[in-house]
Amino acid sequence: MNVGGRHYRTIWLKPDDERVVQLIDQRALPHRFVVEEVQTVEQMATAIRDMHVRGAPLIGTAAAFGMYLAMLAEKDLNSAATLLRATRPTAVNLAWAIERQLAAIAKGATATETIACARATAEAIADEDAEHCRQIGLHGLELIEQIANRKNGQPVNVLTHCNAGWLACVDYGTATAPIYAAHDGGIPMHVWVDETRPRNQGAKLTAWELGEHGVPHTIIADNAGGHLMQHGEVDLVIVGTDRTTFTGDVANKIGTYLKALAAKDNGVPFYVALPSSTFDWTMRDGVAEIPIEERGAEEVKHVDGWADDRLVEVRVTPESSPAANYAFDVTPRRLISGLITERGICQPNEKSILAMFPEHAR
Amino acid sequence: MNVGGRHYRTIWLKPDDERVVQLIDQRALPHRFVVEEVQTVEQMATAIRDMHVRGAPLIGTAAAFGMYLAMLAEKDLNSAATLLRATRPTAVNLAWAIERQLAAIAKGATATETIACARATAEAIADEDAEHCRQIGLHGLELIEQIANRKNGQPVNVLTHCNAGWLACVDYGTATAPIYAAHDGGIPMHVWVDETRPRNQGAKLTAWELGEHGVPHTIIADNAGGHLMQHGEVDLVIVGTDRTTFTGDVANKIGTYLKALAAKDNGVPFYVALPSSTFDWTMRDGVAEIPIEERGAEEVKHVDGWADDRLVEVRVTPESSPAANYAFDVTPRRLISGLITERGICQPNEKSILAMFPEHAR
Repeated sequence: MNVGGRHYRTIWLKPDDERVVQLIDQRALPHRFVVEEVQTVEQMATAIRDMHVRGAPLIGTAAAFGMYLAMLAEKDLNSAATLLRATRPTAVNLAWAIERQLAAIAKGATATETIACARATAEAIADEDAEHCRQIGLHGLELIEQIANRKNGQPVNVLTHCNAGWLACVDYGTATAPIYAAHDGGIPMHVWVDETRPRNQGAKLTAWELGEHGVPHTIIADNAGGHLMQHGEVDLVIVGTDRTTFTGDVANKIGTYLKALAAKDNGVPFYVALPSSTFDWTMRDGVAEIPIEERGAEEVKHVDGWADDRLVEVRVTPESSPAANYAFDVTPRRLISGLITERGICQPNEKSILAMFPEHAR
Repeated sequence: MNVGGRHYRTIWLKPDDERVVQLIDQRALPHRFVVEEVQTVEQMATAIRDMHVRGAPLIGTAAAFGMYLAMLAEKDLNSAATLLRATRPTAVNLAWAIERQLAAIAKGATATETIACARATAEAIADEDAEHCRQIGLHGLELIEQIANRKNGQPVNVLTHCNAGWLACVDYGTATAPIYAAHDGGIPMHVWVDETRPRNQGAKLTAWELGEHGVPHTIIADNAGGHLMQHGEVDLVIVGTDRTTFTGDVANKIGTYLKALAAKDNGVPFYVALPSSTFDWTMRDGVAEIPIEERGAEEVKHVDGWADDRLVEVRVTPESSPAANYAFDVTPRRLISGLITERGICQPNEKSILAMFPEHAR
């Protein structure tokens, strides 16, 4: 999507030197826009591990480009794969992209052929991710159009949580794809951006990307969504997901469940946008089965932001108070209106999901 | 309650010089413990306006002491009352305490008698607030004892939102009073402290006061409460309130409604602690009628905390992104298990509330 009026993806080959991968270093956002040049698989591993790039689809694409860089430098590919796999523990896309690169190497191919193949595979993974997100956008657009038809030119108010935007993917995003499609298609849009404590991905990343693309938006404390829904200020909730069971239970950033409860209580439609790669085809009961990552207390106790022309981290809490930091929660399917996938919108139940993805039926 | 092992109230007359009021300057918490000396009504107005003291009961008491300081200095009492009334727009207790001071002035009394009377009235207001909170603690203690009896020595897990602690009152607090009573009575307690964005009163004040009094607690992002309730980690929710209708609808810090929804969804009891002065005897429908204060966007966009041995404010969001800042929300009575008042626990409906406070029946 656009940054300063120019189209960007989150990761790409440098136009005049294709031995270099360029990516947006998201650690500096929203305060500075930094494009990083990555020239080795080790640098790519660092970029993934230290969250210069984040978001499951983007991590997978970055790893695919990392394998390409390893092949360019004639590194041992098993070592490169091991290095990349170890960067983030939970991202399914990471392992998948690395396996796809390894599987694409043809026996007996020359080094030049292998490199060309790895480059093509990395670019294909990036293009496929962007295309899936674009399709999610088109399917979600139909929901927004229906609401817009009722609103007589008043903006459609969408609430979203965390960053399921193009910064988490290659382009378009998942939850944001319908919003961008509607905005670019001329529908007046306004987005309520949950700040998304404790890491503030909404306040930092979603607000930044919507602002750069010109989508009207307002940042709110995570606490505010219920009040807004009580007073008719939210027409639609769209969130992303880190893992969705084939029965329709949705794991997403902590706090998603609270917004789903408020949406149900106020009759606001609550949709989840996801590429089908996010489905877990083995789990039946999300609340009972999906493991929830616990992260460090310092993310709750400390906040970083911009002061005196630099990034500064402050401690908000008493030094001696403990803090707990659950990264995700699970929204039960009974609270969800529908799942927006690259193939269309399905209901959050086994029958509807498997009807849309019959190749996963057992 | 205790600070560093010594008992404090939030406001008191200086023991060796009763022309001086001392109070805890809460702006410095949790990073520094500062006792401020207030010697004039103008200084007291500043302390209330700039939130050295906050919380409706404490604001009322501070205003009463402010009137005492005005009489000591032989100031014009109507001007003093006007000055104090203008410090905070919405606190009912503020106007009430000022009126009570003005009403207590006996016609024909000497200046010495008037000052003695004003001092006695201020101290009575402080003592009554502390006593009401103590009674709330004793009534709420019964709820905690019932849960403790089922838990076989395991800690009782209470979740609270914002600061309805002794720092908002003179002593004990409202939502915290049952917790302190249980802890001091030897029941093992653990408190989940919602950080309470955007002003972080939980992360700053509730965590500090629980820590100083020795009550085990854990700070969490406001987003985490639903997940904890889903997994049986919360036995009881107790919150305070800024205004409660005589029909049982509860206005409290923004985000309270979301916690009430999660409590209902998971069968967790959800109680509201309040002195009866917080009831609004005129309003029937809280969601429709209670006005919700909107505060400045900078409270959402900026966070202050401790860095480099000083208070530093950082901006978390893009500079150009707007933010909305609703201070309160309303929890409908259907989500509330009961109201803990100084007279006992009543149900959140007109009949039960008026049965406990029959002097307000019309």
